[in-house]
Amino acid sequence: MTTDTTERLRIVTRSAGAGELFQLLRDGRPRTRTELATLTGHARSTITSRLEALLASGLIAPVGEASSTGGRPSTSFAFNPTSRVVLAVDLGATHARLGVTDLAGEVLASSEDRLDIADGPERVLAWVAETGRRLIAEAGRDVADLMCVGAGLPGPVEHSTGQPINPPIMPGWDGVDVPGMLTAHLGVPAFVDNDVNLMALGEHRHAWPDVADLLVVKVATGIGAGLILDGSLRRGAQGAAGDIGHINPDNELTTPCRCGNTGCLEAVAGGGALAAELREQGVEAETSTDVVALARAGNLPARHAVRSAGRLIGTVLASCVSMVNPSLIVIGGVLSESGDHLIAGIREVVYQRSLPLATQHLRIVTSRTGASAGILGASMLAVDEMLSVDAVDALAG
Amino acid sequence: MTTDTTERLRIVTRSAGAGELFQLLRDGRPRTRTELATLTGHARSTITSRLEALLASGLIAPVGEASSTGGRPSTSFAFNPTSRVVLAVDLGATHARLGVTDLAGEVLASSEDRLDIADGPERVLAWVAETGRRLIAEAGRDVADLMCVGAGLPGPVEHSTGQPINPPIMPGWDGVDVPGMLTAHLGVPAFVDNDVNLMALGEHRHAWPDVADLLVVKVATGIGAGLILDGSLRRGAQGAAGDIGHINPDNELTTPCRCGNTGCLEAVAGGGALAAELREQGVEAETSTDVVALARAGNLPARHAVRSAGRLIGTVLASCVSMVNPSLIVIGGVLSESGDHLIAGIREVVYQRSLPLATQHLRIVTSRTGASAGILGASMLAVDEMLSVDAVDALAG
Repeated sequence: MTTDTTERLRIVTRSAGAGELFQLLRDGRPRTRTELATLTGHARSTITSRLEALLASGLIAPVGEASSTGGRPSTSFAFNPTSRVVLAVDLGATHARLGVTDLAGEVLASSEDRLDIADGPERVLAWVAETGRRLIAEAGRDVADLMCVGAGLPGPVEHSTGQPINPPIMPGWDGVDVPGMLTAHLGVPAFVDNDVNLMALGEHRHAWPDVADLLVVKVATGIGAGLILDGSLRRGAQGAAGDIGHINPDNELTTPCRCGNTGCLEAVAGGGALAAELREQGVEAETSTDVVALARAGNLPARHAVRSAGRLIGTVLASCVSMVNPSLIVIGGVLSESGDHLIAGIREVVYQRSLPLATQHLRIVTSRTGASAGILGASMLAVDEMLSVDAVDALAG
Repeated sequence: MTTDTTERLRIVTRSAGAGELFQLLRDGRPRTRTELATLTGHARSTITSRLEALLASGLIAPVGEASSTGGRPSTSFAFNPTSRVVLAVDLGATHARLGVTDLAGEVLASSEDRLDIADGPERVLAWVAETGRRLIAEAGRDVADLMCVGAGLPGPVEHSTGQPINPPIMPGWDGVDVPGMLTAHLGVPAFVDNDVNLMALGEHRHAWPDVADLLVVKVATGIGAGLILDGSLRRGAQGAAGDIGHINPDNELTTPCRCGNTGCLEAVAGGGALAAELREQGVEAETSTDVVALARAGNLPARHAVRSAGRLIGTVLASCVSMVNPSLIVIGGVLSESGDHLIAGIREVVYQRSLPLATQHLRIVTSRTGASAGILGASMLAVDEMLSVDAVDALAG
């Protein structure tokens, strides 16, 4: 049976239960029983019994409204995003951002800490759980309000299991059941994805909800992209879609990469590569942040290095534009904060190398959600899973 | 409103009408009124009235079955794919394949002719209509049975309008309303897409319906790909996704391309490029077909040229694998018929250049539907549009 057939059957055979009624209300607009009956084509009695299940779950709350006809006031019902909270986790190679959000992605409390992912899953995830509990209290909520955890990891994650697969910068994490460990710590379901996928999800939903086809690129120590086509994140067969950091932009380049190959984009245009290049020219630079600070301060070798990196990234993105034809490329990650030098190099090559049809409406811009994209996306990943039609059907019995 | 919200509302607010009932039956399995009522959760009376509308349209036919209980025989109903026919058109630079199919994509009659796309839309489409009418008669059907036309063109097509946009090898076709002209000739709706997209659709649905993420690559005079992710064809923002023929596989290459750029994959690894390379070595070759014949006959320069082309295509596909993480790459187009030389070159580079996670389950194979992929896909495109939920709702009043 093809996917399309499965989808058709799914649509037809699923009579509008509590889960579907909830999806209708998830946009936050209050609606009356009568409006819901009209929208769904179901009897008011059916709507009433399904609303009762949703009210009991706390996901829906009544919103009182006076009746205009002077009769019994007709109550409206709306999504109640503050009923539960989500722990959103964005782990990098050397930092961690955590946030507690409501079910609509509103950040109630957040933190940013240095953290070495190479400390391994036991230590890192115990710390995440402890910090998460502290943030929940800081947001004035109880741990019992926690509905789920969403977490991004800085490496390839197998989508079906949430396990890191051969992650180059995460020693000790290969094949580890990260969702299971988070659930063991916090007692709620946990959902794990690649950090760049979650950054793309956060940026898309918060800043560009009406753009259906876009590429969100992270340029930091590592380089990766999240691919949104026809309005949804596309992860590919193993969840590795968007892993552009190991494409070779120029056969002449032979710099060894931590992945074992040579000439990878990340090895020649990532923050570490740029810092090394500057040191060779006698400029003090250790990290991506150092490179950004130098470029912003007007250091010419740094500006030149960032611009050149932009051109190499542009070469790879030109191929991506030909392949997936996005209407928007969003550049994020710490190196995107170095003024316009990175994006100028990217634009230069993308507009030169791609076909007119693919670039005539293509915009290339800097991220709007910036450093918070990751936790916004992690929250959304978890909420989407927990509030899916089937999940709410189960929840509302 | 995000695409996801729109989709959620669409699912919820569309009560199961005739269109949805039809989608349920489209798999071809006969079902009784009682079975349909159980599957949809609707009353038998509702099912009966919707079935009547579908029976009147001819899309559904009764399938008589004796009752096992000795009572009134319980009739089953099933999709009747032979009720109407589709004209499927696959236009190349120098050839045309036409087919008449039923609504399930069964080919009832077909033809293959030489045709110069540069003759322009007036002459070419008049010829298509005339040949189509002849094929409908040859299939023993009447022109009144024609439900729709699906057509593939050898260049970029804007998906929303079906118009070719700056097609490099189709002089006179830029911005032409091809669907409108086909409808004017044949009196039925027409749907137009890029030939490689339709080839991908045909290959996917006929040969690999259970593979959700795949890339179908056409290697002929031109080179292009069709991108299927999460079970559906992804066309990108302007319908140009998969246009990999103008990616530069190696910065050293400076061969001028017909697109105006230099070093494009098509200009160095397409059939024309290989024929030119062979002529320079004193081997007689004009077309892609000549190159294939030479390679199959054991001509060493031809085999070497095809293998080298495979490596260049592999370089570009390695980037595509990193970008979209397919589990299958299907190689089609006439050059794929030159023995294993093309695919060997492709495999060599893709497996060397891509990350382990992306290649551990990646298969690279030759097309199963071969030259008929295009008309199979053209038929499917048109049938999918004509038999969508909304279209059948309208049809069944």
